[in-house]
Amino acid sequence: MKISLIGAGNVAWHLGLALENAGHSVVEVFSRDIKKAKYLTSFLYNAKPLNELDFSESDADLFILSVSDNAIPEVCSKLVLPENAILAHTSGTKSLNDLVELMELNHDLPVECAVFYPLMTFTMGVRLDIQTVPFCIESYNPAVREMLVKLAQQMSKTVYLVSSDERKVLHIGAVFACNFTNHLLGLSRHILDKEGLDFELLKPIIRETIRKGLGVEHPADVQTGPAVRGDTSTIKRHLGYLSADEDLYKVYKTLTQSIQEWHEE
Amino acid sequence: MKISLIGAGNVAWHLGLALENAGHSVVEVFSRDIKKAKYLTSFLYNAKPLNELDFSESDADLFILSVSDNAIPEVCSKLVLPENAILAHTSGTKSLNDLVELMELNHDLPVECAVFYPLMTFTMGVRLDIQTVPFCIESYNPAVREMLVKLAQQMSKTVYLVSSDERKVLHIGAVFACNFTNHLLGLSRHILDKEGLDFELLKPIIRETIRKGLGVEHPADVQTGPAVRGDTSTIKRHLGYLSADEDLYKVYKTLTQSIQEWHEE
Repeated sequence: MKISLIGAGNVAWHLGLALENAGHSVVEVFSRDIKKAKYLTSFLYNAKPLNELDFSESDADLFILSVSDNAIPEVCSKLVLPENAILAHTSGTKSLNDLVELMELNHDLPVECAVFYPLMTFTMGVRLDIQTVPFCIESYNPAVREMLVKLAQQMSKTVYLVSSDERKVLHIGAVFACNFTNHLLGLSRHILDKEGLDFELLKPIIRETIRKGLGVEHPADVQTGPAVRGDTSTIKRHLGYLSADEDLYKVYKTLTQSIQEWHEE
Repeated sequence: MKISLIGAGNVAWHLGLALENAGHSVVEVFSRDIKKAKYLTSFLYNAKPLNELDFSESDADLFILSVSDNAIPEVCSKLVLPENAILAHTSGTKSLNDLVELMELNHDLPVECAVFYPLMTFTMGVRLDIQTVPFCIESYNPAVREMLVKLAQQMSKTVYLVSSDERKVLHIGAVFACNFTNHLLGLSRHILDKEGLDFELLKPIIRETIRKGLGVEHPADVQTGPAVRGDTSTIKRHLGYLSADEDLYKVYKTLTQSIQEWHEE
C-alpha cells in the first residue's frame, strides 16, 4: 500500500517506520514545519516531505492523520484529498463522528473516515516492539474496517475493533494507569532527591510492583502498604513528614483514602 | 553462618531461601502458628520449626526478626536470646532506636541490634531474583554493620548503609511509587471492567510507561497526558464521565492538579 502521513510527530515517526518494515510505502509526510517533515522522511525509503495540505494529486491508498488533538480541526479545514480517499486519525480521544463532521464541513468530495489508534506511549527515536502495541480500529465502512485491521495485523499481534465510546474509556483508564502513575514516579523521585537519596534504590521494587500487579487476576489483590493494612500510626507519621509540602500531602491523603474506601467494600 | 528466623511470612520465606542458597544455614524458624513455621522449614535443609520465643540455648550467629511492624513490640517483650546475640529486624519503617529500646526494656542480657531491610515487595511462593534486591543495613556497631553488609552482598548486587531517617524517606517514596501506583492500576482495571473492556489492552502501554519513566533522567521529563498538555476540554470530559463515582472523580482531580502545579513551576 501507498500511505501518506499527515503529521510528523512521535506517532507518525513510529507508524512510518513500522509500515515500511511491514512492506508498505510511505509516499508523503506533511508537517507545518518542513524541517520536521524532512526529519521523518530521512528515516523512510522514498517519502516526499510536504508543508502544504493539498493532496489532490496524491496516489496514496490511505491518509493517516497523526497530529495533536488540538490541531485536528484546523488541519481538516485545510486538507484537500482526492475523491474517495480513506482518512484515519490516530487519536485516543477524538471520536469518529468528530472526524466525519469536520470532513463533511470542509470537503466537497466524499471521504471515508476511520480510526487507526495505536494504544501506546511513543517517543521519537526510542524504538519499541510494535508487535506488542494494541491497535484500535473503527470505521462505519466494513471494507475500510477490514483493510485497516489487516494493515494493523501486519505490524502488531493484537488488533481490536473499538468504538469511539470504548476508546474514550480506554483513554481514561490509561490516564490513571500511565499518566498518573508516571507522575507518582516523579513525586517519589522528588521525595528522595530532597534527602539526597539515590532513586536507583527504588527501581527494583517499582518494577516488581508492576510485574506483580499486571500478573495477578486484579491489581487490588496484591495491594500492600500502610493504607490497606490500616496502619494509622505510619500514615500519621508520613503525613506529618509531608505536611511541609501541600501538594504531596494532598496526593498522599487522597490516595490513602481511596485505597481504604476501595478495600472496605 | 547459622541463622534463626523469627517470623515465617513473606520476607522470612524469601530471606530463608536466599540465605541457604548463599551457603548459610537456617537453624530455627519461629512463628506463633507452628504450621507456618513448618511450612517454611519444609523449604529449608535442616531448620527447626518453633512456636516459642526462648532462644536461650540457640547457637545461631544471627537472629533475623521478620514479623509485622505491629507485632514487633510483643515479640520483643517475649524474646529470650543468648548473651551478645545479634538481632536484626527487616522492617522498612521501624527505627533502629525503637528496637534498641524494646530490647533494653525487656532483656537483661546485652543484645546487638541492627537493621537488615530488603527493599522489595515479597509474596510467598513467588520467586524473584534476590540479586536485584537492594539491602539497607544499619547498626551502631561497626563490626555488626560489616558482617551484615558482607552477608547481604552474598545475596544481592546492591547493598547500602541507610540510617533510620533515610529509611523512613525511602519508605514514603515507595508508598508513592509502589503502593499508590498499584492502586491506580486497580482503579484503571475497574474503569475498564465497568464497560466490559479487556484490561489486557492497557498492559503494553503501562509496561512501556514504567520502562520509559525509569529509563530517563527524571520521570517528569516524559510526563504525558491531558494534564501536562493543559488540555482542559479532555479533562472536563473525563471529569464529567467520572462524576458518577466520587472516589474516582477525586483521585482524577487531585492528580491532575498535582501534575499541573508540578509542571507550572
